[in-house]
Amino acid sequence: MPRLSDRAVRMPASPIRRLAPYADAAKARGVRIYHLNIGQPDVESPPSFWEAVRNPELRVLEYSHAAGMPALRERVAAHYRSIGIDVTPAQVLVTTAGSEAVAFAMMATLNPGEEVIVPEPMYANYIGFAAYGSVEVVPVTTRIEDDFALPGVEEFERRITPRTRAIVVCNPGNPTGVVYSDAQLEELRDLAPHHDLVLIADEVYRDFNFTDAPIRSVLQLEGLDEHAVMCDSVSKRFSLCGARIGFLVTRNAALMDAAVRFGQARLCPPTLEQIGVLAAMETPQSYFVEVREEYRARRDLLARRLRAMPGVVCPNIQGAFYATVRLPIDDADRFCQWLLESFERDGETVMLAPATGFYQTPGLGLDEVRIAYVLGQDKLDRSMDLLESALAAYPGRTGAGALPVTPHA
Amino acid sequence: MPRLSDRAVRMPASPIRRLAPYADAAKARGVRIYHLNIGQPDVESPPSFWEAVRNPELRVLEYSHAAGMPALRERVAAHYRSIGIDVTPAQVLVTTAGSEAVAFAMMATLNPGEEVIVPEPMYANYIGFAAYGSVEVVPVTTRIEDDFALPGVEEFERRITPRTRAIVVCNPGNPTGVVYSDAQLEELRDLAPHHDLVLIADEVYRDFNFTDAPIRSVLQLEGLDEHAVMCDSVSKRFSLCGARIGFLVTRNAALMDAAVRFGQARLCPPTLEQIGVLAAMETPQSYFVEVREEYRARRDLLARRLRAMPGVVCPNIQGAFYATVRLPIDDADRFCQWLLESFERDGETVMLAPATGFYQTPGLGLDEVRIAYVLGQDKLDRSMDLLESALAAYPGRTGAGALPVTPHA
Repeated sequence: MPRLSDRAVRMPASPIRRLAPYADAAKARGVRIYHLNIGQPDVESPPSFWEAVRNPELRVLEYSHAAGMPALRERVAAHYRSIGIDVTPAQVLVTTAGSEAVAFAMMATLNPGEEVIVPEPMYANYIGFAAYGSVEVVPVTTRIEDDFALPGVEEFERRITPRTRAIVVCNPGNPTGVVYSDAQLEELRDLAPHHDLVLIADEVYRDFNFTDAPIRSVLQLEGLDEHAVMCDSVSKRFSLCGARIGFLVTRNAALMDAAVRFGQARLCPPTLEQIGVLAAMETPQSYFVEVREEYRARRDLLARRLRAMPGVVCPNIQGAFYATVRLPIDDADRFCQWLLESFERDGETVMLAPATGFYQTPGLGLDEVRIAYVLGQDKLDRSMDLLESALAAYPGRTGAGALPVTPHA
Repeated sequence: MPRLSDRAVRMPASPIRRLAPYADAAKARGVRIYHLNIGQPDVESPPSFWEAVRNPELRVLEYSHAAGMPALRERVAAHYRSIGIDVTPAQVLVTTAGSEAVAFAMMATLNPGEEVIVPEPMYANYIGFAAYGSVEVVPVTTRIEDDFALPGVEEFERRITPRTRAIVVCNPGNPTGVVYSDAQLEELRDLAPHHDLVLIADEVYRDFNFTDAPIRSVLQLEGLDEHAVMCDSVSKRFSLCGARIGFLVTRNAALMDAAVRFGQARLCPPTLEQIGVLAAMETPQSYFVEVREEYRARRDLLARRLRAMPGVVCPNIQGAFYATVRLPIDDADRFCQWLLESFERDGETVMLAPATGFYQTPGLGLDEVRIAYVLGQDKLDRSMDLLESALAAYPGRTGAGALPVTPHA
């Protein structure tokens, strides 16, 4: 029996997807599940995308350029310039989704055994990309009591070692819904060049911003031309999660050159979706305003319902379409599994993501879950009814109102 | 200025794509280029694929399952069973093209610094995947004089060290067109478990086989259930290079579990193409017979023309749609660049891939090029006219008939 590599052993199962077998079993029993566990929006993808991929003149689905269709790189660069991010087409690499953009940025920066600092709770796949590349994630813990705000720069400095090469932030934040302030980002701007670290910002939720100020891109921080990489995606912006089209954007020419060579090794991103996304880039601004206002209404509903539940802590949610909330439970993994295995009301239940998978520090997130509010307001309201009933019935409930503890099978 | 990682520095530029700027410049001068440099077939993708992706009922392009659409895994497993490869759907992972399948197989097996043995000339991107994963490629050189046949097992054994974890073979072979015999493969079958190595076979050209015997899959070698991984793709089979859909197939459940977790980190392969490929799987066998016979005719034409050129060595070509041939030239990189920069006949030239990028051993392949015979017979014939003229005119020609040597700029 051949031995698996260390990275294969280390690679975590997705916290979002590892409950899938229990969900399948519940569905097989006829239970309807409200999926608040995964960031799959219910919004329709833009008609212009569909029109372009249905072009009857397409006959041979050929490789595209490894760095992406030149027309798409141009169009995307023009879009960034229109929102105040000054980049050229050569500074935009089309990637196979935002996942690949983050992975390429990390791999261009980090040798095996080197360290990347990431605020936690974090997008779980950063841990996966680190495992794949045999690099180490060093977490900076953020707290629900502070609305998961970016910690002071001294918290980052304390974690910098001779092996530290990069910082990854997600803004607006998955899984927390945090939006970082200018002042917080400017502290990182001063820190990164001082220690020669690359600041990688995952900004795929830029359009989902409920604050009054625009999202400050890492590429809008002065003096970071060589030290900043922005990662983006069409998955959330255009509700095109299955398209697998993203962008790595940087003014660091050497890093871009490396990323292009990484791209050549995998030949190209999907061609058909590049054609569709090029057309979708013309989507009018009104589409995004409408989508954002819908999510804002959902956010308001979610926060109102959660805050009315005894023992539940719902922080201030400023962006993206997630909230990480504290529940009066003993163990989030157990609770989320129990929701699928042992709970239903009128044949329905709700699926959540345990927050444990979003923390790198062992033991954190045990009483937290991530909620993706990607369902319409009626369904979201019903999901909150179900969660409220479930919390009342859950045998592992903690705090005031807890049931007598009963052992689990 | 932040330092790039060692893997970023090591990652080679694609030998197939690094001449692209010279090709662009030639096109800008109005020169028509016959592209024999890249394995992009000119064959139309199956109509069933286009029909499926144009389904007007598709409205939201959602994530698929990380391991691929269950229906596609089932259909692909059934296809393998129909050609004598006995696997279940759980033994088939849908990957983002064959590239990802090979990369996942290597990463599940190899730690940084460990070694994978690969016959050279090899598909250049194996070197790229190794660089990305910080692992070492140990080449076993094959020779044009032997039609690039697999060397005896003792050549592999000589290269096995305590750090060796895997062997990668490509059968039918890119860039050589070799098809490995049963006897050669059986030697590897005995070797792999003896040294506990994983045998990774890239079989994406299975349908392009001009020998009388069927291609022997690595999954048809007895006793290798724990040690064999097969990598496949729809790029060549269905002329769907831009679809980025491939398959990792193995009976090693632990390795499959690791590959699925790798897959979860990048969420899913492109959804729309999975829908299209599921439909394309029903393509009648007559399509493949027709395509193969067209390529056989091209192969015959190519070999006839090349063998009639003085100083050219064209080996026996048994499969895929490539040939690695020896030319009477001083330096393949220089020659291929010269074809684009300084040569034309009636406003036309030909683009080839220098073989140097397909060798890991420095200095090999200097007088060899890879020809992808992916153009129709008229265009292929014209390309050979151009190559013949070019060889007569090239200032760096060697051997009988060489021009006096003139220095290059």
